[in-house]
Amino acid sequence: MKEIGIGIIGTGFMGKAHAIAYRTALSAFPHIPVPRMVMVGDVTADAAAKAAHQYGFESSTGDWRQVIANPAVHAVSITTPNSMHKEMALAAIAAGKHVHCEKPLSPNLADSLEMVTAAEAKGVCTQVGFNYIKNPLLKLARDMVDAGELGEITGFRGIHAEDYMHDPQSPWTWRIDPAGGPGVIADLGSHIIGMARFLLGDIAEVSADVRTVIRQRPVARGATEMKAVAVDDVARMLVNFGRGCGGTIEANWIQTGRKMELGFEVTGEKGSIAFTQERLNELHFYKAGGDARRSGFTRIEAGPQHEPYGGFCIAGGHQLGFNDLKTIEMAEFLGGIAEGRSAGPDFREAYEIQKVVEAALASSRQRSWIKV
Amino acid sequence: MKEIGIGIIGTGFMGKAHAIAYRTALSAFPHIPVPRMVMVGDVTADAAAKAAHQYGFESSTGDWRQVIANPAVHAVSITTPNSMHKEMALAAIAAGKHVHCEKPLSPNLADSLEMVTAAEAKGVCTQVGFNYIKNPLLKLARDMVDAGELGEITGFRGIHAEDYMHDPQSPWTWRIDPAGGPGVIADLGSHIIGMARFLLGDIAEVSADVRTVIRQRPVARGATEMKAVAVDDVARMLVNFGRGCGGTIEANWIQTGRKMELGFEVTGEKGSIAFTQERLNELHFYKAGGDARRSGFTRIEAGPQHEPYGGFCIAGGHQLGFNDLKTIEMAEFLGGIAEGRSAGPDFREAYEIQKVVEAALASSRQRSWIKV
Amino acid sequence: MKEIGIGIIGTGFMGKAHAIAYRTALSAFPHIPVPRMVMVGDVTADAAAKAAHQYGFESSTGDWRQVIANPAVHAVSITTPNSMHKEMALAAIAAGKHVHCEKPLSPNLADSLEMVTAAEAKGVCTQVGFNYIKNPLLKLARDMVDAGELGEITGFRGIHAEDYMHDPQSPWTWRIDPAGGPGVIADLGSHIIGMARFLLGDIAEVSADVRTVIRQRPVARGATEMKAVAVDDVARMLVNFGRGCGGTIEANWIQTGRKMELGFEVTGEKGSIAFTQERLNELHFYKAGGDARRSGFTRIEAGPQHEPYGGFCIAGGHQLGFNDLKTIEMAEFLGGIAEGRSAGPDFREAYEIQKVVEAALASSRQRSWIKV
Amino acid sequence: MKEIGIGIIGTGFMGKAHAIAYRTALSAFPHIPVPRMVMVGDVTADAAAKAAHQYGFESSTGDWRQVIANPAVHAVSITTPNSMHKEMALAAIAAGKHVHCEKPLSPNLADSLEMVTAAEAKGVCTQVGFNYIKNPLLKLARDMVDAGELGEITGFRGIHAEDYMHDPQSPWTWRIDPAGGPGVIADLGSHIIGMARFLLGDIAEVSADVRTVIRQRPVARGATEMKAVAVDDVARMLVNFGRGCGGTIEANWIQTGRKMELGFEVTGEKGSIAFTQERLNELHFYKAGGDARRSGFTRIEAGPQHEPYGGFCIAGGHQLGFNDLKTIEMAEFLGGIAEGRSAGPDFREAYEIQKVVEAALASSRQRSWIKV
Repeated sequence: MKEIGIGIIGTGFMGKAHAIAYRTALSAFPHIPVPRMVMVGDVTADAAAKAAHQYGFESSTGDWRQVIANPAVHAVSITTPNSMHKEMALAAIAAGKHVHCEKPLSPNLADSLEMVTAAEAKGVCTQVGFNYIKNPLLKLARDMVDAGELGEITGFRGIHAEDYMHDPQSPWTWRIDPAGGPGVIADLGSHIIGMARFLLGDIAEVSADVRTVIRQRPVARGATEMKAVAVDDVARMLVNFGRGCGGTIEANWIQTGRKMELGFEVTGEKGSIAFTQERLNELHFYKAGGDARRSGFTRIEAGPQHEPYGGFCIAGGHQLGFNDLKTIEMAEFLGGIAEGRSAGPDFREAYEIQKVVEAALASSRQRSWIKV
Repeated sequence: MKEIGIGIIGTGFMGKAHAIAYRTALSAFPHIPVPRMVMVGDVTADAAAKAAHQYGFESSTGDWRQVIANPAVHAVSITTPNSMHKEMALAAIAAGKHVHCEKPLSPNLADSLEMVTAAEAKGVCTQVGFNYIKNPLLKLARDMVDAGELGEITGFRGIHAEDYMHDPQSPWTWRIDPAGGPGVIADLGSHIIGMARFLLGDIAEVSADVRTVIRQRPVARGATEMKAVAVDDVARMLVNFGRGCGGTIEANWIQTGRKMELGFEVTGEKGSIAFTQERLNELHFYKAGGDARRSGFTRIEAGPQHEPYGGFCIAGGHQLGFNDLKTIEMAEFLGGIAEGRSAGPDFREAYEIQKVVEAALASSRQRSWIKV
Repeated sequence: MKEIGIGIIGTGFMGKAHAIAYRTALSAFPHIPVPRMVMVGDVTADAAAKAAHQYGFESSTGDWRQVIANPAVHAVSITTPNSMHKEMALAAIAAGKHVHCEKPLSPNLADSLEMVTAAEAKGVCTQVGFNYIKNPLLKLARDMVDAGELGEITGFRGIHAEDYMHDPQSPWTWRIDPAGGPGVIADLGSHIIGMARFLLGDIAEVSADVRTVIRQRPVARGATEMKAVAVDDVARMLVNFGRGCGGTIEANWIQTGRKMELGFEVTGEKGSIAFTQERLNELHFYKAGGDARRSGFTRIEAGPQHEPYGGFCIAGGHQLGFNDLKTIEMAEFLGGIAEGRSAGPDFREAYEIQKVVEAALASSRQRSWIKV
Repeated sequence: MKEIGIGIIGTGFMGKAHAIAYRTALSAFPHIPVPRMVMVGDVTADAAAKAAHQYGFESSTGDWRQVIANPAVHAVSITTPNSMHKEMALAAIAAGKHVHCEKPLSPNLADSLEMVTAAEAKGVCTQVGFNYIKNPLLKLARDMVDAGELGEITGFRGIHAEDYMHDPQSPWTWRIDPAGGPGVIADLGSHIIGMARFLLGDIAEVSADVRTVIRQRPVARGATEMKAVAVDDVARMLVNFGRGCGGTIEANWIQTGRKMELGFEVTGEKGSIAFTQERLNELHFYKAGGDARRSGFTRIEAGPQHEPYGGFCIAGGHQLGFNDLKTIEMAEFLGGIAEGRSAGPDFREAYEIQKVVEAALASSRQRSWIKV
């Protein structure tokens, strides 16, 4: 397999990020197939054509079904709003295309399961956009956990908090339309839940408080007419992992002042690691034992010793950025396709994450612990 | 009132801290009565005499009742283990002495209530050793909350984590003897619960997971014989404040690598503040609005503009330390006595904190939300 | 001008960075001409062909002159070792090609001046690879200085320190071959000198201590035979800026532990800014005046309000990386070509920077202040 | 020697800090003689009496000579303005009293030498108030250097910058009266020069730029009448240490926004340490070698494993403050007296520091390197 034809549906924030990532992937990962930028689709032909020019696609369309129908397209990235994922993904799968779908997979578990089942039945490779775990330092963190460097794990504290909805005057938008599913617990919560699972495995049960703090918003910026908000803007969870340890997880999109407070602290009997996406090129590591006068958290800076950083830069300290994480993600997707496997996180994993989301919502409604 | 006679019972970590604080108080707070170091008591006369020499007391005793009986003693600091607080405090109160008692007040709510009732009936001033909130920057934080600078409060995240019990080979000690009450939720949890209350007021209900992770420990350092651990070493809570907002609180004494991770993030619709005791001379403040190109969290450094920092140093940036917080605490205790009021946190407040602790324990047992 | 044909000479660290940057430029900067990846050259045809495949060039060559001779190539990136810059650049200029040359421009001032003169005579656009100043936050920093937000500038402290040569067992390589010019003062010093000039303008005079600390190195890794080192590994400078303020600048490639300690503190009578490339998405800003209880350094996080961040990501806090800075650089180069001007830093500016380097070397030899 | 009678001359910022320190010393250092607070002197009897009350002295006087004449006083702390140090110190020495004198020792080298000579001739113990090096982590830093943990030292970067004079509207005061000696190079420069010497030993030569940036100031706050400023407000130095390595040192009291930017980075071939007084309970340590994937700067937090931290607190992470450093200083002074030696830094060391100051001033005037 020397070349993989790429189609992208959607040209917004994520559509662009995918395009940049596909175009950079081979430079950073020399052994993957060449991604060929075949076709991009958007809701209007004009928008798609503009995107094709800017992102370097060979062709464009105002009808997303043409992206899927294009025989030169082998893999499709779906970057449209959540409520459209299912229809597009099922169509792509039916056409035998490999599918990357942005998170969350769909507004509800049943739809997501349908997508998982279809993809597995068809045998196509899938991936869902949980890009933050593609950080080389997150791979190191998981290696440390798996190798027992931290000893028996005793706790997890995770958070994904931003502030893009903190202002009560921020208007009602598609983002808080319940047609798209839950609010922050799906939008940001899925990231930190996925990260928790990436590091520590299954979450077995949850006790959650998921709430809507800002209960109404203007129908438009500056409008006086208000519209009730039905989705959550803060979710707080106590969790028990299948491996036995406990933890807390928070998702919050009204955390005033925080632009990317996505982080965690994993603690074991013999060591701890701490991370925040605000400084994504640093992992803080404490190893118990040794010389007490010299012990403390070590700030590990990302460098070529942390694969696949070296694909981007041969020298440490130069810093990866958000788009580089996206490049790793898409490169792994392409590499997986070449090897006939889903490089992950695949639809199945996204479904597992969503089960935690749904359990948390149920827990909050019932005010009790819920098994995932 | 020109002079207050001081008696201290207990000469360990806290006994010494109290002594240093009393001896420094007047230097930092010129308007309080002179604390006269009258008598110190410990379990042996020798230990007490040694402490008297070192801490500058006029006299000493191996019988704590003599401290209380000493007519020159007007105020007593009780710095002994939790299980002894009640008997000593009640005796001091009965003798009409003002009482500072280290936290937690007692091993259980009923005992604490008895102490509160006795003190209030007698009309003596009381204080309990929640020293961390004496930080000038914590006072600033509360002022900001109270003045509405953060807008409507939308969330609290608090933690007090240390690692002094993280090693499974650390032996069973008095600290984990259930006779002293609960484990970390009382030892450290009371600090962060108290801080939460200081900043945001009453906690109305709680859903908690309080657990014993390290279930047995050697009977002595290096011993092979093991003894079961009955008290908690991690406590995680979802909380609802009486004012309406939610939050999470964690207490943890097996947080490997952390020596003083006592901190919080308070978020409101218009701003946020973040603090950690690891850097106790800094408060991070975000104010929404203003020039977006220049906005961010401001690192406020403690200085004389933050009372009562100026009592310790006339120039900013010089840094207060733990013992300075203790000095503020004791100075406020003395100042309160002079004015005929408990400067706080008093026994009543400690009891309110303990009610949250007990509610969390009940919640964890019943696996449900519990009203405080 | 709808398309600019790109040729790159050299396929190492920088060759790859240029390729990634050109391929991403249009996605982040929609209004520039389309960069067409025409040809890449390296010392062997095989290496060049491999690079063409990986970086997406239409053609490749083992003879760099063919890159320049290619009529479809309008702009050439020279990313070869310093000692080869002059010959290549002059050839490209002679062929009327726009030239980006990596820093430092050449091993000595005379060669650089020849390059500047040739480029200006021919009227081609030039750029030199001082990528770090392309950071959106550096643009903000300069805006602040220029707008007088810091008041009269009173001082500058700048450093570029890394540790890639700190180990005395690191062998003698081309990097310390004097044929390539000075050592760290050219390699890293040029970055921080350029940054100083970017922020504050001309450096008028300098008193420097430029030295070789590790005086010999193995001829190869693990070899016992040693070879003398002739170039500097630490350079420390006192500087006077033309605008009147003083400062210090250090360049150091034996700063053990530092991977990218490129930073500065600019101070004025009314404010200060501080920056380190280790956390390139943050600028720390202090504004004098205002409420003393709430003042401090504000940590400004890069976001779309800081152009051209928004071209990479529509949301703040997502973090740019090193390759993104390179993309901004190349996009500005292309944008400049489209507008018929050098977007800078151009050959002339690189020459001005080199004059400071040479003045520092002279100062160190003569142990006196030297006018630039 | 069971008791040492203390006299303090001066009751301002430093007088108070000395008093607090003496009164706390025995609590933290149980083996030193008991400091007895005998007498305090100030310019008026009233001010002295007030200080005696607040700081716990037995007696007070408006005539500083009486402090020295008091036979119960064995050790005198001189905390008056620089210009008065010499007369007071010589009188105390003549009376056979041990002397602690605040820094800088005197306005000029000749006077300081006279003080050194007198003290050494008389055989009294002396100390000068370079308190910052009393930090337990600074002792660790020096131990690391001395033990060769960093390998051959290759560089030093030191700074002491604050902003108490940054505002051009801050009026002319005694602090900038040339009668007191140089400006910031003596006031803050002596601290960072002393710290450099503490860590790395003798400074052999210096090339400095010492300047007055704010050339006139109002005669009083708010006044329109201006008075010329004769002393320096910024000093920048290139230095060569006697041990062979180079470095830079800066002293600055117009560093807007910085309240206590006193810090350094010491680099060796095998490791580095970095420190800032802004976070005085942290030392950052990098050790070359080991596992590259896990290497980085370790943030060492002060704890009882770093003597004499444990005298203040038995648990790590609780944080020492400025006054605690002062306590260590005075305790060492007292301990030294008990053992018949100057615990340091003594008058001789202060004189050596001042020689560097004077060399820097001469260098700046002559615009050349000057041997110390």
